[in-house]
Amino acid sequence: MATGVSVAVVGVTGAVGQTTLKVLEERKFPVKDLRVFASERSIGKTVTFKGETLRVDKVGPGAFTGVDVAFFSAGSAQSREYAPQAVKAGAMVVDKSSAFRMDPAVPLVVPEINGAAARRHQGILACPNCTTIVTVMPLKPLHDIGRLRRVIATSYQAVSGAGVQGVEELTRQTLAWARGEAMTPKFFPHQIAFNVIPHIDKPDAGGYTAEEMKLVNEVRKILELPDLPVSPTTVRVPVFTAHSIAVNAETEVKVTSAQAREAFAGFPGLRLWDEPGEGRYPMPVTVEGQDDCFVGRVREDLSLASGLNFWVAGDQLRKGAALNGVQIAELLIR
Amino acid sequence: MATGVSVAVVGVTGAVGQTTLKVLEERKFPVKDLRVFASERSIGKTVTFKGETLRVDKVGPGAFTGVDVAFFSAGSAQSREYAPQAVKAGAMVVDKSSAFRMDPAVPLVVPEINGAAARRHQGILACPNCTTIVTVMPLKPLHDIGRLRRVIATSYQAVSGAGVQGVEELTRQTLAWARGEAMTPKFFPHQIAFNVIPHIDKPDAGGYTAEEMKLVNEVRKILELPDLPVSPTTVRVPVFTAHSIAVNAETEVKVTSAQAREAFAGFPGLRLWDEPGEGRYPMPVTVEGQDDCFVGRVREDLSLASGLNFWVAGDQLRKGAALNGVQIAELLIR
Repeated sequence: MATGVSVAVVGVTGAVGQTTLKVLEERKFPVKDLRVFASERSIGKTVTFKGETLRVDKVGPGAFTGVDVAFFSAGSAQSREYAPQAVKAGAMVVDKSSAFRMDPAVPLVVPEINGAAARRHQGILACPNCTTIVTVMPLKPLHDIGRLRRVIATSYQAVSGAGVQGVEELTRQTLAWARGEAMTPKFFPHQIAFNVIPHIDKPDAGGYTAEEMKLVNEVRKILELPDLPVSPTTVRVPVFTAHSIAVNAETEVKVTSAQAREAFAGFPGLRLWDEPGEGRYPMPVTVEGQDDCFVGRVREDLSLASGLNFWVAGDQLRKGAALNGVQIAELLIR
Repeated sequence: MATGVSVAVVGVTGAVGQTTLKVLEERKFPVKDLRVFASERSIGKTVTFKGETLRVDKVGPGAFTGVDVAFFSAGSAQSREYAPQAVKAGAMVVDKSSAFRMDPAVPLVVPEINGAAARRHQGILACPNCTTIVTVMPLKPLHDIGRLRRVIATSYQAVSGAGVQGVEELTRQTLAWARGEAMTPKFFPHQIAFNVIPHIDKPDAGGYTAEEMKLVNEVRKILELPDLPVSPTTVRVPVFTAHSIAVNAETEVKVTSAQAREAFAGFPGLRLWDEPGEGRYPMPVTVEGQDDCFVGRVREDLSLASGLNFWVAGDQLRKGAALNGVQIAELLIR
């Protein structure tokens, strides 16, 4: 592929699709040619890549002929329908949806953590859920020095994690408030402006939501710790971009704050901002637009000898989605 | 006191002081006469109580002469200075500040939980921190059936928990955003609109903030469990009123979700909203203005046999402050 890679982006008009184009351009991904697809209602819209205007089409016969890498971020149903077609046509699929993540034949990859797993792919590679990626980034270096015994994760998730419509909803409700008008929910189940909603996706019989169970199952698969006890609570907050997660982790071996900070600071893709006295710690508005994940508020657990509390935040459209997907492709085209 | 109670409110122009007047009126607290105090810069302002306009004064000589009950919500420094004067003048002080909370001679009271402790007062009664009150409300019935072994609390705190200036800051920044202008921080250390700040009050050497340590120490004192392991993370969110807390609790005796729900629903001052499939769970916008605390998202812990996750929210100006203070006074005047 020295002469370049033929790329397709499916779901190009969505928040992740748009960010995928940006990341491909920023990272000088060797794009030879680019096809952009979205749903029926986006046909005829245009997107821009490296100054060129491209017309959005829907996936049709021959869509993936000659494509080397197809990035999918159009949702699970679309991935289930079209990803196998793309593989059949000879493309490698990097899928951002949840369709194939727990399929034992599909590697679930965060390149800094389990890049080697990518090489075992059979055509499809899955990108974890955005909250999973941001959470698992500091868990890996912590596990390497202390061996994880239990994880409790409590999230503060941005509206763009739910896509462009989430951003539109927070914008629309906030502007309505500014005009003194009612903040009617249309997309989220309740008002999101000036509110927090402790409910993302459908609940199961045990009361956990699909978003919470993704976090449990995906963290286990990525870390190759199939029995790791994980206790999740996922919450939507009125933030545009970047997810934050308060993590309590118990380890087999005691890890001091100093050891944890050193491990976090030295892990690729992770940066330490931990000077609370100077007001320095990760926040959505400071991590938005950044490629790395940021960790801070590292504290030894007051309630447990081998416990640690910390706070991690990351741009869930970048490392939590588009960037991680492009990094997966980079692993395999190098 | 059959003919009524002579009342003083110190810090009457603040968010909690204003709510105290509202609550006294709503609950038909037998106010015989009312004196209202605030800081130098509020002198001459007026407040309304039962349709009457009262002029705000600063605390001066004789301020508490003849006063039966004085509600303090002017901050720790003011409480340290004036509460002993009020006690000397014969008043019973209900203090909302942190000044006396950990004083062994001062009862720290949530009436539904440890109302009996109030009777041991020596003039001053302390009202816990707002986040503590909302968190401890469901912990008590859970402890009664399962005996608490460890608590991990992660908060989503409203700006009005920081007072009127917090509300003004979120309002000002959001309106600036609506006009396309910069959102400059003036009161909180960082932008709060469309952001979350994992830092409330000063950090200590171990990295925990004063707000986090209040939660640890006050929960222990209220529940009379001086060694209870508590692991806190407190976070400010862009919500006007009502604090929410994601709680993970470990008990000596296994408590099922059904048992916990029953215990929560039956506890005075606590209500169960736990039908996530129907979108029913506590949120800031639905609990604001309500006297009770609300609990939902009750889930048996996936990571521990005797663990439980739940979500509790309460109006921190009411049950978290003003209402709890008035309830303390009611215990003692009945």
